[in-house]
Amino acid sequence: MRTDVNTLGEFGLIEHLTKQFSLQQPSSLVGVGDDAAVIDNGNFMTVVSTDMLVEGVHFDLAYTPLKHLGYKSVVVNLSDICAMNAFPRQITVSIAISNKYSVEALDELYEGIRLACEHYNVDLVGGDTTSSTRGMVISVTAIGQCEKELLCYRNGAKPGDLICITGSLGAAYLGLLILEREKKIWAEHPDIQPQLEEHELVIARHLKPEARLDVVEVFRKAQLKPTSMIDISDGLASEIFHICKQSGVGALLEESGVPMHPEAQLQAINFKLDPITCALNGGEDYELLFTIDPKDVDKVKYLPDIYIAGEILDAKDGVKLNTKGGKLHELKAQGWVHF
Amino acid sequence: MRTDVNTLGEFGLIEHLTKQFSLQQPSSLVGVGDDAAVIDNGNFMTVVSTDMLVEGVHFDLAYTPLKHLGYKSVVVNLSDICAMNAFPRQITVSIAISNKYSVEALDELYEGIRLACEHYNVDLVGGDTTSSTRGMVISVTAIGQCEKELLCYRNGAKPGDLICITGSLGAAYLGLLILEREKKIWAEHPDIQPQLEEHELVIARHLKPEARLDVVEVFRKAQLKPTSMIDISDGLASEIFHICKQSGVGALLEESGVPMHPEAQLQAINFKLDPITCALNGGEDYELLFTIDPKDVDKVKYLPDIYIAGEILDAKDGVKLNTKGGKLHELKAQGWVHF
Repeated sequence: MRTDVNTLGEFGLIEHLTKQFSLQQPSSLVGVGDDAAVIDNGNFMTVVSTDMLVEGVHFDLAYTPLKHLGYKSVVVNLSDICAMNAFPRQITVSIAISNKYSVEALDELYEGIRLACEHYNVDLVGGDTTSSTRGMVISVTAIGQCEKELLCYRNGAKPGDLICITGSLGAAYLGLLILEREKKIWAEHPDIQPQLEEHELVIARHLKPEARLDVVEVFRKAQLKPTSMIDISDGLASEIFHICKQSGVGALLEESGVPMHPEAQLQAINFKLDPITCALNGGEDYELLFTIDPKDVDKVKYLPDIYIAGEILDAKDGVKLNTKGGKLHELKAQGWVHF
Repeated sequence: MRTDVNTLGEFGLIEHLTKQFSLQQPSSLVGVGDDAAVIDNGNFMTVVSTDMLVEGVHFDLAYTPLKHLGYKSVVVNLSDICAMNAFPRQITVSIAISNKYSVEALDELYEGIRLACEHYNVDLVGGDTTSSTRGMVISVTAIGQCEKELLCYRNGAKPGDLICITGSLGAAYLGLLILEREKKIWAEHPDIQPQLEEHELVIARHLKPEARLDVVEVFRKAQLKPTSMIDISDGLASEIFHICKQSGVGALLEESGVPMHPEAQLQAINFKLDPITCALNGGEDYELLFTIDPKDVDKVKYLPDIYIAGEILDAKDGVKLNTKGGKLHELKAQGWVHF
């Protein structure tokens, strides 16, 4: 018998492959299923997250500078640590490379990794460097630290909680669309220079995303602890479904509350896309989606770059979007499909 | 300018790429350069090691059952944790796979991973599953625990210390040679069945190595702490050079003291190889090489499966092998060259 992996989807496959595994070690507090694993070390919890980036699947070196790639490969993992309300401290970086890469190319990659380490104050403490038969694979593991009582999981949202989103959504996806379009034009007409300058914001959001460590720091200062949290890597719709599924709740999202940058809205219209679709189903924003107890609403109101975008409902109410036109839509967890 | 990565070698490349990185976090006790990184968590140290295995480079699915591959990909990382004198507790597993792999094939792989978790009592706590454009890449990160004062580094060997080796060396390399030979014969004459049964021991050592967690447990019971330790993944010569370089010492190895299984010796002769060369420059034995203070010699003498194979010298004396014929050879750190 041969079952194609595509029949399960990414999350289905992970669930299928890991369901035979149980946690035996007393220090294994949380295993597969949240943004990161949690290991109990007595005083502090160690939070661990890992991601693998594959050339031709997650990045295209035709328009991704290696320095940006190095930076981004660290950031996507730090984002997972932040989504646990933890502080990233260390990373390990493993790479497999074919012989088409020179030492100078790797220097560029590692310069990006180093800049991310510097910016987020994390240490590179290990890794592996090996050859591949084709292309580049980067695997980063991020390690963070958090007091046990401050950790935020995906399963803590309760009906009545407010849904909050940091920053703005959709720009990274539109940046990707522009880069893909210009690559195609360039392939067909090598004499035409790519038009990238005027789209700097959305392209930067795709090539050089940031993890919202600043938001975790703001939470600490404001003594605010979200009831649940996840980072928005696969699109808002996919992430809200993770929260709802793991918390056993429903949700009502307000389209008018979902933050989007004017430049991203404009680009969406240029591509004949509904802006909210880009926010819901685009990916790689690396913003945070979290829920708060309504009693904390005054704390959130005065925090910068945080937007209230809806409310948690009972599970029976489903996951819905209230559009600007006043219509209720049942949401679907489309997200990114990697396979 | 374009410098080929081969000009630096694996260790040279890692050193080159990581030399711009410094440790800033107070909890980063040890970074790149030992078997694993060490993170200070107050009561216990967290020990982290990571390895990447690439199809066509580290494994050949023509003769590697997926279950064995899953088992081995865990073991090689646990071996690094053991080499720190620490106990492995958790792993994360990331895989990139092309669409040639079915769910059933991945089930086999994860069954091997699960068996290793069960055998070594470690928990799978996270990972990533993604697609690749070709072949399979497996990245495993192992996390262990150890009291600070019991950690064994590569840099603690002192002149006069005794050099010890666990188990036996060379068999995994000879197993690989047999598998490669039978694969070639089979490719040329598909009607001839591979002759593997009579070589079970050496083939098993290649396909299903074990980490010497039992030795770490024996050390605890015997209240023995090696002065330095490393796992033998790239061949004895390469590892003894790591110890000597990082400890600032020399070494005298006794050929008569290097443990080899009679079956491995026999196979070496069949391949017209000097058995000691297979122990020195073969790889993937995953035994432990360690040094002890001479005052601990009585503790070691009565421990099972541990062999005294030489003595640590001053750095000026170099790294030498005293052959069974009584000749002194200068050793070269050939080891495995991956690039």
